[in-house]
Amino acid sequence: MQSVRVAGVGLTPFGDHGDRTIRELFADAGVEAMSDAAVGGDAVDAVYFGNFVGELADGQGHHGPLVAESLGVSAPATRFESACASSGVAVRHAVRAIEHGDADVVLVGGAERMTHVGTGEATAMLATAADAIHEVGTGVTFPGAYALMADAYLRTYGGSSRDLAHVAVKNHAHAVENEYAQFQSTVTVDDVLDAPTVAAPLGLLDACPVTDGASALVLVSDEYAAAADLEAPVAVTGSGQGTDSLALQNRESLSRTPATERAAREAYEDAGIRADDVGLVEVHDCFTVAEVLALEGLGLYEPGEAIGAARRGETWRDGELPVNCSGGLKAKGHPVGATGASQVVEMTRLLRGDHPNSEYVADATTGVTHSAGGTVASTTVHVLEVVS
Amino acid sequence: MQSVRVAGVGLTPFGDHGDRTIRELFADAGVEAMSDAAVGGDAVDAVYFGNFVGELADGQGHHGPLVAESLGVSAPATRFESACASSGVAVRHAVRAIEHGDADVVLVGGAERMTHVGTGEATAMLATAADAIHEVGTGVTFPGAYALMADAYLRTYGGSSRDLAHVAVKNHAHAVENEYAQFQSTVTVDDVLDAPTVAAPLGLLDACPVTDGASALVLVSDEYAAAADLEAPVAVTGSGQGTDSLALQNRESLSRTPATERAAREAYEDAGIRADDVGLVEVHDCFTVAEVLALEGLGLYEPGEAIGAARRGETWRDGELPVNCSGGLKAKGHPVGATGASQVVEMTRLLRGDHPNSEYVADATTGVTHSAGGTVASTTVHVLEVVS
Repeated sequence: MQSVRVAGVGLTPFGDHGDRTIRELFADAGVEAMSDAAVGGDAVDAVYFGNFVGELADGQGHHGPLVAESLGVSAPATRFESACASSGVAVRHAVRAIEHGDADVVLVGGAERMTHVGTGEATAMLATAADAIHEVGTGVTFPGAYALMADAYLRTYGGSSRDLAHVAVKNHAHAVENEYAQFQSTVTVDDVLDAPTVAAPLGLLDACPVTDGASALVLVSDEYAAAADLEAPVAVTGSGQGTDSLALQNRESLSRTPATERAAREAYEDAGIRADDVGLVEVHDCFTVAEVLALEGLGLYEPGEAIGAARRGETWRDGELPVNCSGGLKAKGHPVGATGASQVVEMTRLLRGDHPNSEYVADATTGVTHSAGGTVASTTVHVLEVVS
Repeated sequence: MQSVRVAGVGLTPFGDHGDRTIRELFADAGVEAMSDAAVGGDAVDAVYFGNFVGELADGQGHHGPLVAESLGVSAPATRFESACASSGVAVRHAVRAIEHGDADVVLVGGAERMTHVGTGEATAMLATAADAIHEVGTGVTFPGAYALMADAYLRTYGGSSRDLAHVAVKNHAHAVENEYAQFQSTVTVDDVLDAPTVAAPLGLLDACPVTDGASALVLVSDEYAAAADLEAPVAVTGSGQGTDSLALQNRESLSRTPATERAAREAYEDAGIRADDVGLVEVHDCFTVAEVLALEGLGLYEPGEAIGAARRGETWRDGELPVNCSGGLKAKGHPVGATGASQVVEMTRLLRGDHPNSEYVADATTGVTHSAGGTVASTTVHVLEVVS
């Protein structure tokens, strides 16, 4: 089995890209990744592309061939859609394709645009990731769904809105120096607590923004990296994928995320690591409570323990277990189809030392990325390690 | 490497399913496939699901977890979207996952519904598979795009609308006894030539219908089939995937389909066969001309030679190389996301002897299925062989 190296990474700035289309955004990120890897379009064996609602936002489906061609790639191109985990799932399949020798070089990533439709329409588009009949049909959209999860968590384990506010404060602080982040600005605990309530107990500053952007990675086999003399010190050593009921009503618990647990188990086993070995984490914090749920699902905290982690300082970039040094979805932004792969981009930058926050985490050699779609109905977990 | 067996197949009737949702349609096909395979939900290691425009047609994205849960499967579920090749691409990835030992049992298939929105809106939805800016923006929808290809073909190689009409006549005749077909009725050459022109040289009866329906397969490793004592005499021995420019304007030729050529090359090499070995074919005949292009792309006819194949009787079920014994998209129907996997379902039934048309092709042991998205911008080719 081949091992998988990250040869190159690319991102667009996350934010408002006006009328730029999904294909244009991905072309920017893809060119950056291929340039970073020193790999041309003719070397690419496959394109794995994550996008959530291109049909609704751009009137464009069938993005695989479109994004491949825009980057001068004629290899087979596949589009993956798993809501907010779309490009996380694309990365997972790319990793397996390289491990098994189906491809030596895969261009993988994702893109989304939504700011041009406005918040109301974006909320409706995002709601297509929930159960259209049993959830959306009753009026539930994602802020409401995550509020139900937050409420269940706080009732089950204790903790407060103030604890959740610390997650937002931390992730905003982490984003200040990240040149790709949508919000390079700090917020205070009081800012978060005083923000308008969106769906109790969550307020406006507990939520990630609507974002346009793209992410791209060039993943290669270690044999290819050696033969082509590529500098690729970070390896993807583990990959896991999980699924849960789409509708919240069918879950045994609203305060646990078994799809994350499953994906983490597979990824850790794949990499031959335990949760204790993890030194750095990027998780899917679409709402503050989602970071808490993710850290527990990943086995990094016992159930009920992660709620105080940011408040206690543990998950800050200078803490014991830095979480979302990129700024997370919360402050870096959440271009849905791009997000999963962007976490792998950011983890790579952090581990190889060229991220603005790398200096805080210089000792970390093992990082974990966690992508989640819907109310954690689709997940991927990847383990990245510095190998040379 | 594991070899891949088809353990079970399922289809809904193709046609108008009123208000039944994508999830309901796939549940029907999935239950049939799992029952046919004698495999329960807890044995399934992964769900690979193809769907094109669920967001537009059902207001529902993120179908992976939804269809998995409806079949009692808690394994990871992935949705693939490659326009009309969506479930062809899902099958391709499922085959690789089993070959490499990532999964022993994969439930794979697809579903679509469109009849409820009416023909105009369906045409607009289908157009999201073309280039929204450079094709749809100029007024081109799929009948027009395929008409350009038909026109280019007939100008380059000769042949006539009458030749194309024979393709429709043949595929309708093949569908008469297929209990799943949308049109179990014959048409004559004059019927096709006298039908209203849709986009010259193509008329209404050169086109496949708008269809609701679902398809499902249980694919297993040969080791699993042996251990569980499953009857699975048909193997998927080859798989290929190809991509071309999405927009016609960027192609070197409108009368050739290099994405099909590429996928066929990979699939034949994978299976260790040559085009001469192929005894039975199911191709993507969304329009009559598409069958002609596919047969040449698959290397079964030289360029310019396939146009007369149906007229000469060669591709009829009692001919030298039976093509679309299912009735094809043309007469069996085209529930977009279901189509690619449905071809593998039909080929399996034909090869193992339980298709109404099996009696005509009893000597065939090697079949090829061909799925195409857009104007053949995304393709998959699979080789199926009777192995026991």
